[in-house]
Amino acid sequence: MKITYIPGGVCAARGFRANGVRCGIKASSKKRDLALIVSEKRCAAAAVYTANLVRSAPIKVTKAHLSDGHAQAVICNSGNANTCNVNGLEIAEGMSALVERYTGIPANDVIVGSTGVIGQPMSLAPMESGMEALTAGLGDHSDLAEDAIMTTDTVPKEAAVEFEIGGVTCRLGGIAKGSGMIHPNMATMLVWVTTDVDITPEMLQKAVSEDVKTSFNMVSVDGDTSTNDTFAVLANGLAGNKPIEAEGEDFDAFCAALHAVTVKLCRMIAKDGEGATKLVTCLLTGAADDKTAKTVAKAVICSSLTKAAMFGADANWGRVLCAIGYSGAQVDVERVDVSFRSKAGQVDVCKDGAGIPFSEEEAKKVLLEDEIDILVNLNAGPASAEAWGCDLTYEYVKINGDYRT
Amino acid sequence: MKITYIPGGVCAARGFRANGVRCGIKASSKKRDLALIVSEKRCAAAAVYTANLVRSAPIKVTKAHLSDGHAQAVICNSGNANTCNVNGLEIAEGMSALVERYTGIPANDVIVGSTGVIGQPMSLAPMESGMEALTAGLGDHSDLAEDAIMTTDTVPKEAAVEFEIGGVTCRLGGIAKGSGMIHPNMATMLVWVTTDVDITPEMLQKAVSEDVKTSFNMVSVDGDTSTNDTFAVLANGLAGNKPIEAEGEDFDAFCAALHAVTVKLCRMIAKDGEGATKLVTCLLTGAADDKTAKTVAKAVICSSLTKAAMFGADANWGRVLCAIGYSGAQVDVERVDVSFRSKAGQVDVCKDGAGIPFSEEEAKKVLLEDEIDILVNLNAGPASAEAWGCDLTYEYVKINGDYRT
Repeated sequence: MKITYIPGGVCAARGFRANGVRCGIKASSKKRDLALIVSEKRCAAAAVYTANLVRSAPIKVTKAHLSDGHAQAVICNSGNANTCNVNGLEIAEGMSALVERYTGIPANDVIVGSTGVIGQPMSLAPMESGMEALTAGLGDHSDLAEDAIMTTDTVPKEAAVEFEIGGVTCRLGGIAKGSGMIHPNMATMLVWVTTDVDITPEMLQKAVSEDVKTSFNMVSVDGDTSTNDTFAVLANGLAGNKPIEAEGEDFDAFCAALHAVTVKLCRMIAKDGEGATKLVTCLLTGAADDKTAKTVAKAVICSSLTKAAMFGADANWGRVLCAIGYSGAQVDVERVDVSFRSKAGQVDVCKDGAGIPFSEEEAKKVLLEDEIDILVNLNAGPASAEAWGCDLTYEYVKINGDYRT
Repeated sequence: MKITYIPGGVCAARGFRANGVRCGIKASSKKRDLALIVSEKRCAAAAVYTANLVRSAPIKVTKAHLSDGHAQAVICNSGNANTCNVNGLEIAEGMSALVERYTGIPANDVIVGSTGVIGQPMSLAPMESGMEALTAGLGDHSDLAEDAIMTTDTVPKEAAVEFEIGGVTCRLGGIAKGSGMIHPNMATMLVWVTTDVDITPEMLQKAVSEDVKTSFNMVSVDGDTSTNDTFAVLANGLAGNKPIEAEGEDFDAFCAALHAVTVKLCRMIAKDGEGATKLVTCLLTGAADDKTAKTVAKAVICSSLTKAAMFGADANWGRVLCAIGYSGAQVDVERVDVSFRSKAGQVDVCKDGAGIPFSEEEAKKVLLEDEIDILVNLNAGPASAEAWGCDLTYEYVKINGDYRT
C-alpha cells in the first residue's frame, strides 16, 4: 500500500480549516495561545486520554461531548492547563460555548484541549476577546493552529499523508504539542488529527485505541505522565470512500495511514523533548512476547543514566543492561546483545550480557549524531517493539527549574 | 528507649576494625578504592540485595557465603562494579580468597562488594598488590573504609548509635555509598553495618528485611535501580546481651537502633544524590493503606519535573499533584492537600486537589533552603510514609553525561 507524505497538517484533508491567534492567556509573551480546527461537516470522532488520575477539565468535557461518537471542531489553548482549578469545568464548557456562538457548531460537538501550567487560576475573558479574529481567520492554517498549542516546544510538529481506500484518494494529517511531562501511557500532551475518510465512530475508536499502543504510548521524555494528554481524530467522510464499518482491507489501509502520521509525530515529540539534543530510539527484538518487548524498550529510553550518557555521547552500555534488568520484565540477561547505531555506523558493545571489545573512537562517532538507535536483542523469541525518547541535558533542568516564572 | 548517636561508623561496635587504601583500580585517580572491615569474632550476618535481574558477581558470591547465616569480614572495591564481566565470579571469589590469605578468615565468611562502572574488564592484580597495606593498617578507620567505597559521592556517609538491650550497652554503626543509580527497591548501592549485639542469623535477617521497607526502599535519586545494591549487617555478639532469638522487647530495641542508623544514611544518600543541592522528603499522610502511602510518596520524590522545580525553588505544586495522579495508586485526587515546608516555614499551596492563594515570595523563601519537606495529605485514611529524594540539577547531567572518561 502506498502512503505519501504531503504538506498541510490538519488542513490536508478535505473540508477542514484551522487558525491560531494570540488572545493573551500567556500574559507575558507574544506567542499565540488559542487554536481552532473546524470541519465543514459533522465528523465521526474518537479519542484516548491520559492514564493519570488527575485529569484536566477539558478532558472531562471532551469525554462527555464525544460520548455520541461525533464532533465537528477542536478548540485548544496553551498557557494554562486548566487542571486542578476550582472553575475548570466552567471554563472548558465556556470554551465550547464560544465555538458555538462564533461558528454555529453545537457546543457538544466541540473537543476542548488545554496545555500549560497546572493549578493556575483561569478566566474565559482572553479567549472571548480572541474569538472573532480566530474564527474570521479560519483557513488553510494548520501551522498557525500548531503554533498556538506549543508551550516549551521548540519546533512545530505536523504531518500528513495521502493514501487510497478502495481506489479513492484520502488524506489524513495531524498536529501535536508535547515537550515535557511526556511518558507512557498516552505519551503526548495534545494530538489533533483530521481525515476525510468515511468511517464509523466505532471503527475510528478502534483504530485510535489500537494505534496508541505502538505510537504515543511508546514515547517518553521525562517519565512524568501528563494530566492533559489527549489524542483525538475527526473523520468527516468527504473523501467519499465506501464507509468503513468493519475490519478488513479498507480498515487496515486507514490504520496504516494513521500510524504513518502518529509515528512521525512521536519521533518529533521525542526529538523535541525539553532540552533534548538527540532522538534516542530503542529497537527491541527477540522478546518472548509483546508485553516484554514494550516493557524493556520503554525502560531503556526512560533510564536517566542512559539518557545522560547519550547526551555525553558515551557508549556506557552497562546502563542499558541495568535498565533492562530493572524493567520488571522477565529477561535472561545472559543472552542480551546491545549495539549503538546512527547515520555514522553501528558498533556492537555487548554480547550475551557481557562486554565485548569495541573502538571507543568509533562509538563516539556513532553517538555524536542527533538520531541514535539502541539495538537490543533479547534472543528469546519473535516479539519486537520500538520506543522513542531523548537525551537528558542541562537544558531540561534549566527549562523545568523555573517554568512558571 | 534511648538511642544516642555516636562517632565511629563501622568501628563503633566492639571488635570491629576497618581500613581503606588505594590499590589502583581507579587507574587515573589518587582516590582510595579498596576497603576491608573485619570482626575479631565470627558474626551472625544477613543481607538484602538489588531487585535488578542484572546482578553483580559480588552479590552472587555474597549470597553463597551468607547461606549459612555467618560472616566475619567485608571486602569492597570501588572503580569497577564487577557486573556483566566474563570473569566476574572468579574476581569476586578471588577477593574472598585474598582476605583469607591475609587475615586467616575463611573465604566463605567474607562478604564481597563492588561499585563503579558496569561491564568493564577487571583484574585481581591491583587488589592483590594492595592487600598487605590494607590488612596491616586495620584499626579504628571507618572513615578510610568509607572513603574507599565512594564513587561520585561527594561526602562520606557514616552513622552509629549506642543503645541498651536488657540493661547492656550495645553499639551499631554503618557506612554507605550511593549517589547515582539510586532507586527503590534497595535504593542504595552499598551499606555495611556492624553491631556487637548478640542475635541469631534468623532474627538478624528478619530485622534487615523489615528495615529496608521503610529505609533504603524509600530513597530515589534518579530512578535507576543499581545492579550492585547490597545492605549487609554483621553482628558479633561482643556486647554480651542475652542473645536475641525471637521477637520481643529486645528485638524491638535492636530494630529501632538499626532504623536510627539506616534512616540517617538514607537521608545522607538522598542529599548527596548526584548533582543534588537539596534533600527533598515527601511526608505522606492520610493514605488508606501502607502500600498506597509508599507508592504515592515515592512517585512524588521520583518525578523529574518536581525535582527540577525543587532545584529552581519553584512552588510548582501542580507537578506534585500530577505525580500523585500517575503513581498507580488509587487516590481521590479531589481530597489531596499539599504544603511545602523547611526551616524557613511552611506554605500551603493546594487544598482538596485545587490551588489556593499563597505568597510566591514566602514560598520561594521556604524552597531556597537545602532540606525541603513536601507534605501530602490524602485525607483518606490512617497510613503514612516517608520517602527521600533530591533535586534534579545541571550537575546530575554533567556527572552522568561523561562518567566513564
